[in-house]
Amino acid sequence: MQIAIVLFDRFTALDAVGPYEILARLPGAETVFAAERTGPLRTDTGNLALVADRTLAEVPRPDIVVVPGGPGQTPQMENETLLDWLRAVDATSVWTTSVCTGSLLLAAAGLLRGRRATSHWLALDQLTRFGAEPTGERVVTDGKYVTAAGVSSGIDMALTLLGRIAGDDHARTVQLATEYDPQPPYDAGAPHKAPAHLVAALRARSRFTPTPSS
Amino acid sequence: MQIAIVLFDRFTALDAVGPYEILARLPGAETVFAAERTGPLRTDTGNLALVADRTLAEVPRPDIVVVPGGPGQTPQMENETLLDWLRAVDATSVWTTSVCTGSLLLAAAGLLRGRRATSHWLALDQLTRFGAEPTGERVVTDGKYVTAAGVSSGIDMALTLLGRIAGDDHARTVQLATEYDPQPPYDAGAPHKAPAHLVAALRARSRFTPTPSS
Repeated sequence: MQIAIVLFDRFTALDAVGPYEILARLPGAETVFAAERTGPLRTDTGNLALVADRTLAEVPRPDIVVVPGGPGQTPQMENETLLDWLRAVDATSVWTTSVCTGSLLLAAAGLLRGRRATSHWLALDQLTRFGAEPTGERVVTDGKYVTAAGVSSGIDMALTLLGRIAGDDHARTVQLATEYDPQPPYDAGAPHKAPAHLVAALRARSRFTPTPSS
Repeated sequence: MQIAIVLFDRFTALDAVGPYEILARLPGAETVFAAERTGPLRTDTGNLALVADRTLAEVPRPDIVVVPGGPGQTPQMENETLLDWLRAVDATSVWTTSVCTGSLLLAAAGLLRGRRATSHWLALDQLTRFGAEPTGERVVTDGKYVTAAGVSSGIDMALTLLGRIAGDDHARTVQLATEYDPQPPYDAGAPHKAPAHLVAALRARSRFTPTPSS
């Protein structure tokens, strides 16, 4: 089984590394990081680069596709090389997945039409532009499409998927090995839980905030 | 404020990327990935490389030091270049931190003597070899030393630290931006929660399991 994790400039690191850390522990699986060109790709902060070991063209038939999001997702919405690759690999993939605004790339490729899906909470409405049905859940499975909410939710998505593929006990073993027993020191990880003024402040500087009509 | 995240061969990716994703969002902070040599460092699976942009020597006075763990931690226990660097930067750091078996590197450098600390659950006992006092907590703060349990716990550690440095509201904003509202599909993330046979199986193949005396 081959797992392809897509990289592009200004992706969000944890979107990709969360699922990687879980899925790479699938017995017998090969995980490959792929991008338009091989070599280092900078994350959204500019302070970290991950290496793409393969070009997209070199990974024509992955069993699992993972598409991360991040600020760099916006220009990728018009990258026909990437969108064509997503459509092509989706034709034979067993699972097509995304984290955060990666779901907008799947949607822009036409893969989520009529399907339930999720995305970063700030981007959720955007899914309707492409005929997808946004839901507020953290991990959404519709057929072979598994989409996750923002950034850190890729860990939950990958554990869910690992359980489906390798069984509950294997997924529990990976949860135990990665000591994924989360104890956040605050309870502000979703817009309905965080103080309203913090939610409003993030909305105000989001790239998805529509310009208010006057 | 400068945040230095240490890399070495066969580190565990999420140990480093979890804290990075949170701490890099500290206003005005510069995050640098540093290793003995610059260039790509392969993670424990061999399927991913992160780039070290600086040598350790080029980062002589970070304010925050983050040391990840992973299978590659064992040979680093005798890497005097790394241990000397840890001792040197600790002399001026504001916070010295670790994730997973990274705490064994801090301990081997002599920095945790007489201090409460934690590590991956499989390695916890090893801390006593260096005069540290292991605790079962997920994030342990003793003075300026903040150690986290296995792999994924670096996210909780970093949010805790971010709150101390930048205030609760900033930490909550980062939690919301990264949608860190964990909903693991299983409850097996700690040895007291996971089925006993899964705990035993991981212990049996751990590099920290002592050879039983006959």
